[in-house]
Amino acid sequence: MLNGGGTATMRKGRLEAFSDGVLAIIITIMVLELEAPHEADLAALRPLVPTLLSYLLSFVYLGIYWNNHHHMLQAVDHADGVVLWANLHLLFWLSLVPFATAWMGSNEFAPWPVALYGVVLLLAAIAYLVLERILVALHGRESTLARAVARDGKGILSIVLYVVAVPLAFVGPWLACAIYVLVALMWFLPDRRIERVLAR
Amino acid sequence: MLNGGGTATMRKGRLEAFSDGVLAIIITIMVLELEAPHEADLAALRPLVPTLLSYLLSFVYLGIYWNNHHHMLQAVDHADGVVLWANLHLLFWLSLVPFATAWMGSNEFAPWPVALYGVVLLLAAIAYLVLERILVALHGRESTLARAVARDGKGILSIVLYVVAVPLAFVGPWLACAIYVLVALMWFLPDRRIERVLAR
Amino acid sequence: MLNGGGTATMRKGRLEAFSDGVLAIIITIMVLELEAPHEADLAALRPLVPTLLSYLLSFVYLGIYWNNHHHMLQAVDHADGVVLWANLHLLFWLSLVPFATAWMGSNEFAPWPVALYGVVLLLAAIAYLVLERILVALHGRESTLARAVARDGKGILSIVLYVVAVPLAFVGPWLACAIYVLVALMWFLPDRRIERVLAR
Amino acid sequence: MLNGGGTATMRKGRLEAFSDGVLAIIITIMVLELEAPHEADLAALRPLVPTLLSYLLSFVYLGIYWNNHHHMLQAVDHADGVVLWANLHLLFWLSLVPFATAWMGSNEFAPWPVALYGVVLLLAAIAYLVLERILVALHGRESTLARAVARDGKGILSIVLYVVAVPLAFVGPWLACAIYVLVALMWFLPDRRIERVLAR
Repeated sequence: MLNGGGTATMRKGRLEAFSDGVLAIIITIMVLELEAPHEADLAALRPLVPTLLSYLLSFVYLGIYWNNHHHMLQAVDHADGVVLWANLHLLFWLSLVPFATAWMGSNEFAPWPVALYGVVLLLAAIAYLVLERILVALHGRESTLARAVARDGKGILSIVLYVVAVPLAFVGPWLACAIYVLVALMWFLPDRRIERVLAR
Repeated sequence: MLNGGGTATMRKGRLEAFSDGVLAIIITIMVLELEAPHEADLAALRPLVPTLLSYLLSFVYLGIYWNNHHHMLQAVDHADGVVLWANLHLLFWLSLVPFATAWMGSNEFAPWPVALYGVVLLLAAIAYLVLERILVALHGRESTLARAVARDGKGILSIVLYVVAVPLAFVGPWLACAIYVLVALMWFLPDRRIERVLAR
Repeated sequence: MLNGGGTATMRKGRLEAFSDGVLAIIITIMVLELEAPHEADLAALRPLVPTLLSYLLSFVYLGIYWNNHHHMLQAVDHADGVVLWANLHLLFWLSLVPFATAWMGSNEFAPWPVALYGVVLLLAAIAYLVLERILVALHGRESTLARAVARDGKGILSIVLYVVAVPLAFVGPWLACAIYVLVALMWFLPDRRIERVLAR
Repeated sequence: MLNGGGTATMRKGRLEAFSDGVLAIIITIMVLELEAPHEADLAALRPLVPTLLSYLLSFVYLGIYWNNHHHMLQAVDHADGVVLWANLHLLFWLSLVPFATAWMGSNEFAPWPVALYGVVLLLAAIAYLVLERILVALHGRESTLARAVARDGKGILSIVLYVVAVPLAFVGPWLACAIYVLVALMWFLPDRRIERVLAR
């Protein structure tokens, strides 16, 4: 039992370390899209404003994922191979965020790039929910984690909002962007539910 | 003994941390090959499909290496200088995966790039097997690790399949790619043998 | 209590690990701006001197942030969601340092880039102070941390100096740069105040 | 004492983690210099051979630094602000290795790039020796570390060889490169002296 516990802790520790590494790199390489202009005046910065705004939105989203991932894994006791792959699946979609961000920023929030950005967010949100469900199934319905995420209204609501936002990008890209900002605000605070159950 | 154990644990911990860092960076910088197109319509994404497919394949391969490396090191008790270099040797070949992926993706799976991709996978597979053998030699034939990997059929089979796939790239690149996908599927699940022996 | 302590330690550990990861990546990707020239003689290196100087200054600044962040978190006992976001806020401004560095270096310290560099340093300094205040509020006025940073003269002075330096960039960019170097020298040594209080 | 020890351990742990992060990034971003050629035949790879060779040499050098840094810090008990800066000083010179590698590789080992590569190696070697001396001074002449590195012949010899190699680059670049390879081979094995003293 002690050995088993030690093994599980290590496994979870390395899962966290690898996820943190990938998230830290994703969040940082996005800034490489902000290329220094050749001119040295204020006007040269203006074309970068959409890129900066899309960088800011993606920075917040990746911060939210890091925060929630961190809180979810705190309530987790052990992991297995399926968890490792569900986690990599989440990281795969998040790794496409810099590409979607760059396309959206460099095209000044045109319909297709804004729609693609929403699709990537949608797939990442589904991957997060899948990871959460797999972790709950592994720990049992009576576990701390299961009780903490029992009614994951926010996760489902986010997915519904992304599904609404993607077609709206072709009506008005800023409508879709407003929804992305709304979802980000909704998630801005870390998952208090887990903190509350842990505190008991 | 306690001191020795502590030293070995630290050493293994830093080996894991460094390997995780390098693997996380390799897996993430590959996405930099997916450059945002200048046009903002769906057609602009089509030329990126081969690059995305080759990225997906390499992401899965690096995920497999991270998973298996993780499982193998869990069964490991201590390391020495030879292990550190055998590990760096593996990381060297894996660090060439982004280059091979980019060449294959940007040339739409042409024969030479597909063959080179297979050569890099082959050399990484050999480096992994060398690392495994060195770790087994260090821990002895009666160790948990030695029993877990005693009949490493999958490792040898992968090497045989790569050796077959590389010349096949010149007959039909998609034949070689089918073999790469097959090997990836074969390794998709983490090494249950080690889990089984650890569970005893 | 033990569980709570364990949770807090883990949380702080992952906060440190993520911050270290982001800071390590920021400090390292800056060097990508130093592109290898096509010519192979000494003269080809001369145009890179301003880029190298701005890289050196930013390297020292990021080293200072890493050092001070490290010392501050050593005096910290626990963290919450607000702390995580205050920390991400600091990392956001620091993530813009490579962009500001590249713009300043490639334009040979022209007024606007030098001013922008100061603005980014100013916003990072404010973000650091906000993080410090949030941590102090969380730990209470009698905590080790609160006593250590009670009279944060250096933090306030840095902000004042940046506010002076930014407009000076338009009078003479080298005046502003001299102030940036002065602030860096002022912070060069780690925060002895915290070390002193911890030593008691 | 327990608290002090705990603080020192943490400090050393974070020093190792940050150094590992920076070294992992440096070692990995070098591979970005190996850009995928537009053509898909074997001839397209030939111009990359010098770049690949210089990458291999730098990979081995950074592996050596990681290994030796790792061994040195294992014998270390605690750190202070001076140590943190001596460590950042070492990382600064190592962070210039990708630039020197790219210049040397893309100019097919021309005299000036080969000489610059040697200068960067020389400055990194001096920085390593400075870090070692500072750690020894901190731990005292009777410490495990001090006894382990008491007669650091290899460190001094490396510096002498670099000093010889740099001017030789202008006589024949391959002479200088031969010396760089020689020094790498000399350091290839981890520092057995420290292992020997630790084993006692």
